[in-house]
Amino acid sequence: MDEPQPAPTPSPRELAQRILAGERAALARGITLVESRRPDHRDQALALLQELLPHGGKAIRIGITGVPGVGKSTMIDALGSHLTGQGHQVAVLAVDPSSTRTGGSILGDKTRMARLAVDPHAFIRPSPSSGTLGGVAAKTRETMLLCEAAGFDVILVETVGVGQSETAVAELTDLFLVLMLPNAGDELQGIKKGIIELADIVAVNKADGDGASAARAAAAQYQAALHILASASPVWQTPVVTLSGLTGAGLDALWARIEDHRSRHEARGLITEKRRRQDVKWMWAMVQERMQARLRHDPQLKQLAPALEAEVASGRLPATVAADRIARALGL
Amino acid sequence: MDEPQPAPTPSPRELAQRILAGERAALARGITLVESRRPDHRDQALALLQELLPHGGKAIRIGITGVPGVGKSTMIDALGSHLTGQGHQVAVLAVDPSSTRTGGSILGDKTRMARLAVDPHAFIRPSPSSGTLGGVAAKTRETMLLCEAAGFDVILVETVGVGQSETAVAELTDLFLVLMLPNAGDELQGIKKGIIELADIVAVNKADGDGASAARAAAAQYQAALHILASASPVWQTPVVTLSGLTGAGLDALWARIEDHRSRHEARGLITEKRRRQDVKWMWAMVQERMQARLRHDPQLKQLAPALEAEVASGRLPATVAADRIARALGL
Repeated sequence: MDEPQPAPTPSPRELAQRILAGERAALARGITLVESRRPDHRDQALALLQELLPHGGKAIRIGITGVPGVGKSTMIDALGSHLTGQGHQVAVLAVDPSSTRTGGSILGDKTRMARLAVDPHAFIRPSPSSGTLGGVAAKTRETMLLCEAAGFDVILVETVGVGQSETAVAELTDLFLVLMLPNAGDELQGIKKGIIELADIVAVNKADGDGASAARAAAAQYQAALHILASASPVWQTPVVTLSGLTGAGLDALWARIEDHRSRHEARGLITEKRRRQDVKWMWAMVQERMQARLRHDPQLKQLAPALEAEVASGRLPATVAADRIARALGL
Repeated sequence: MDEPQPAPTPSPRELAQRILAGERAALARGITLVESRRPDHRDQALALLQELLPHGGKAIRIGITGVPGVGKSTMIDALGSHLTGQGHQVAVLAVDPSSTRTGGSILGDKTRMARLAVDPHAFIRPSPSSGTLGGVAAKTRETMLLCEAAGFDVILVETVGVGQSETAVAELTDLFLVLMLPNAGDELQGIKKGIIELADIVAVNKADGDGASAARAAAAQYQAALHILASASPVWQTPVVTLSGLTGAGLDALWARIEDHRSRHEARGLITEKRRRQDVKWMWAMVQERMQARLRHDPQLKQLAPALEAEVASGRLPATVAADRIARALGL
């Protein structure tokens, strides 16, 4: 895809000042810089992040996932509007590795969230399209920092749940919300296994009209199942709530749970601790990214990794030996 | 810790022949070679693995975990003896990162598994102690290959469930078995969240004497909870069984489930597919290991990683910038 070509950029320090002053244009430009692959842009982006780091981290970071059709966008539009109505500044980001193919979809995102799209206290940014999930997540994390510096106090990170994207989003948020559908009759949809470990709150959507009782029944069964799972947190047991993105029912209760989650964890410094763990893990993930990028782009190594992967996958070469060759090629 | 110092080693090819002939002494020597950190041993180990690769992969690989006190060793001793009684050759390996401190515990393992320890058709090898979980897992995977080449058709890999060790063991086995305790009254112990995603079979142990009914009750509740979770496999829904490592009750039924799991997955080539995915993933994990080892040992870089980690953890440095510095230091 084409590289973004922003207008001549002010110095990172100047841009940082404008972002801190809440200038939307500056924020958008900063994000474009962060998402750019041009080496000179990258250097400016790193300088910008360094400038803004002390001003980041102030928002509550919420990851949201759910299968297609669960009504994520409608729910985010409703929750976001509900929050801006209470005086919050809400940024909606997305992690969608598949957008690498489509090149993102601002229009799509804007239309999917009709109210937030025109809300002066909301900011919607589509998923960066950066080749790999790691790349997409890294740029989203940097964008999150920029949004926090710009004064947004609620960051909603939506993911489509493709491959490992849910884990990636859980790795960059404080709380992970899983939207579920109530199913017809007593046939429950299975909860995706990997999600259980990540979910801090499970919300059964479409609890409106005829769906209300089905949603309550589903919620009760999910709660019973979750009750048997040990909690990953010393101060939190994953609750199951019902809501309606359509009518807004249950959004107040959901937000109360989210604030309860934050206050319980903050009281013990667990949010800070979690973010630090995430940051260190993220640092290593990015080094890994760089290593694999080097393998992908270095003409001499370009063929090596795929060839060795194929050899290993076909059972002709021990992974140990293949790893040894890659490491040597990397000079490790 | 002292490096193992094996007697003058025969050529990798000769050693491979002896291992294939089923010589226990040769197998033990091969494993010592694989576990050694001496560079010359490492080269011989890689050559040995290359020789034996075509003869590996024939065993059914079973990962087993459970909290301390669940009766893992007794159950493995009973299951292993049950299997050797049916003509199987059983190797018991362990992944215990904490053994890095203790230096392993052959004696411990032998005494914990009294019957298998003296069973000519069984082979018990304690956890390698190689510094990092990745290192321990890599050596265990190589040892597994050696055991398969030596004719063992059942590999049981035990893990203590410290940190990520369960994920590591699931990554090197075909089937992951989770042992649970029935709890007094109707107070169920929670299933460790991360485990749910890994468990192919859940077994409630100590289903003997007065414990039998409590075990059945616990099993029913775990089954109900698991039923609500979507299966990761198209051909398998995680079952919950009860057994007694003490009396051997339920071991037949457990093994029938294990064989059922294998045949269903083999029928669709899913075992091979899983192993190939594991191998490629493992290859990259080892490259990562090498990279971090380089950071730990290169005098120039030795201080860098911990220093940057600290800067990032304290929120003084953006992870992006830290990753950039590490990558540059690595010449990436």
